[in-house]
Amino acid sequence: MVLKSNPNLANMEGDNLYHLALDTSNYDLPEMFGDVRFVCIGGTSSRMENFARYIMKELDYKLPTGATLQDLSTAGHRFCMYKVGPVLSVSHGMGVPSLSIMLHEVIKLLSYAGARDPVIIRIGTSGGIGIAPGTVVVSNGALNGLLRPEHNNIILGKVVARPATMDQSLASALLEMGKHHDFTTVTGKTMCTDDFYEGQGRLDGAICEHTEEEKMDFLMRLNEAGVKNIEMEATALAAITKAAGVRSGNVCVTIVNRLKGDQVTFTKEELTQFALRPQKLVATYIKRELEKKSVMTNGKGVSR
Amino acid sequence: MVLKSNPNLANMEGDNLYHLALDTSNYDLPEMFGDVRFVCIGGTSSRMENFARYIMKELDYKLPTGATLQDLSTAGHRFCMYKVGPVLSVSHGMGVPSLSIMLHEVIKLLSYAGARDPVIIRIGTSGGIGIAPGTVVVSNGALNGLLRPEHNNIILGKVVARPATMDQSLASALLEMGKHHDFTTVTGKTMCTDDFYEGQGRLDGAICEHTEEEKMDFLMRLNEAGVKNIEMEATALAAITKAAGVRSGNVCVTIVNRLKGDQVTFTKEELTQFALRPQKLVATYIKRELEKKSVMTNGKGVSR
Repeated sequence: MVLKSNPNLANMEGDNLYHLALDTSNYDLPEMFGDVRFVCIGGTSSRMENFARYIMKELDYKLPTGATLQDLSTAGHRFCMYKVGPVLSVSHGMGVPSLSIMLHEVIKLLSYAGARDPVIIRIGTSGGIGIAPGTVVVSNGALNGLLRPEHNNIILGKVVARPATMDQSLASALLEMGKHHDFTTVTGKTMCTDDFYEGQGRLDGAICEHTEEEKMDFLMRLNEAGVKNIEMEATALAAITKAAGVRSGNVCVTIVNRLKGDQVTFTKEELTQFALRPQKLVATYIKRELEKKSVMTNGKGVSR
Repeated sequence: MVLKSNPNLANMEGDNLYHLALDTSNYDLPEMFGDVRFVCIGGTSSRMENFARYIMKELDYKLPTGATLQDLSTAGHRFCMYKVGPVLSVSHGMGVPSLSIMLHEVIKLLSYAGARDPVIIRIGTSGGIGIAPGTVVVSNGALNGLLRPEHNNIILGKVVARPATMDQSLASALLEMGKHHDFTTVTGKTMCTDDFYEGQGRLDGAICEHTEEEKMDFLMRLNEAGVKNIEMEATALAAITKAAGVRSGNVCVTIVNRLKGDQVTFTKEELTQFALRPQKLVATYIKRELEKKSVMTNGKGVSR
């Protein structure tokens, strides 16, 4: 994996991946990360640590006695990063700016490591539009707050718009995995906002200057535009990975139906169960992909 | 403290401050938070936990034997929150969206608690423009990536610009505290970006489409505009608190001089020392303010 998206990197003496607390001088990145094929990302450190333990079980991946999973980015105090064989489990915090820092550094990491055609899959939470809470949404497109399929960044004083196109083939493959689970999985567009309260039309933030009627008009507009859920990362995920030549997908469970209210009212236990759903779906995808590779490598079927 | 910025709140039966893992139904917020006067905020949980322990020492605040500081928002998995007498120490993650979630919920919390004229002070890290790393910058203004003194949010499909004006009186008071310390403290404008790499003109992200010359032209433009540092929260901090009627300040140490390079090259120990500087300055401010209050209350001087 060579990054054509930034030729400067080839001329640098070393690179300090500051927020990940890893660098090219003190770490043998190809040795550590060369086998990574799946990068699973999500907002909180606790979710991504749980996912690392879960995928370890699912892949029947064993550590030597006396060893335990280690947060590789703990010294950076920003994100967590766990590695389970070909799977990297990394947190990204909340919102586009936080995600973008992680993506820039993880994509450089994968490039320096020589990882081969890795995919980045977000397992997140979101607000649903007209679907029951607990539904899993596989994004087939990402829209910004202006309902445009693009990610806007301000670079050197100018707005730069980049297409926020989701990888359709990966989205289809992820959607297909929904059939193996007992929860509902749908596909549709995901709106990405830079704000949880006013930016998602909520009436219950510290500031609100619009009415319930204006909110509902807006949410109905989203519904008509094919938006199934709202979160805070999709456009940047789609646009940054696309620009860097990495495939990515977005799988989010909904924890509220915004056509019925603003507040998240489920118990901690219910929310934990909901949050497991994207993890289960993505684990199934990873296992299938590894089986395919195993079939190609061995020329015979696998036992799993 | 009553929030005129959202009249809807008065009509709600209860409010779940979802990302803080606190709510109005299960917690007696006035009893818990009614005495809060200073809310100190910063990116990482570790810095804000350290600050809580530091301010506890500085204020000579004692917990009963057998008690320890508790992260009040740990169940939310998003932010940390520690309370030390009149001081709340809260993390906000990286970037405007993450900060804005925390601000909306903390401002509502303070309002429900009946806190009297609280101030919110960010203690952060930043990239400097033409000043030596380690310099502390007290923001007297905040500019967005287009060099406008405003915070842009997209609400119901439309861009809403709000003035990102810093509280001048608080900025002056904070700057004054610099005189009591052996590091350099300056004041100036702070540019707030939504991206650490391209958004701050860096050449070393996973994507780069501009040249070193274009970067330097831009950084020199910032220099001429009076920008002393670049970070990722200032405009939202200024605009959201102003709209909600809460005073706020921004005190950031610089960890790189962007006129000399993009990479952060200091050791972990050096960076830790730098990160202490805004904490020291803000602790001095808090102690002075509490002394003033004590003088007014007692009608006599205080021993500290």
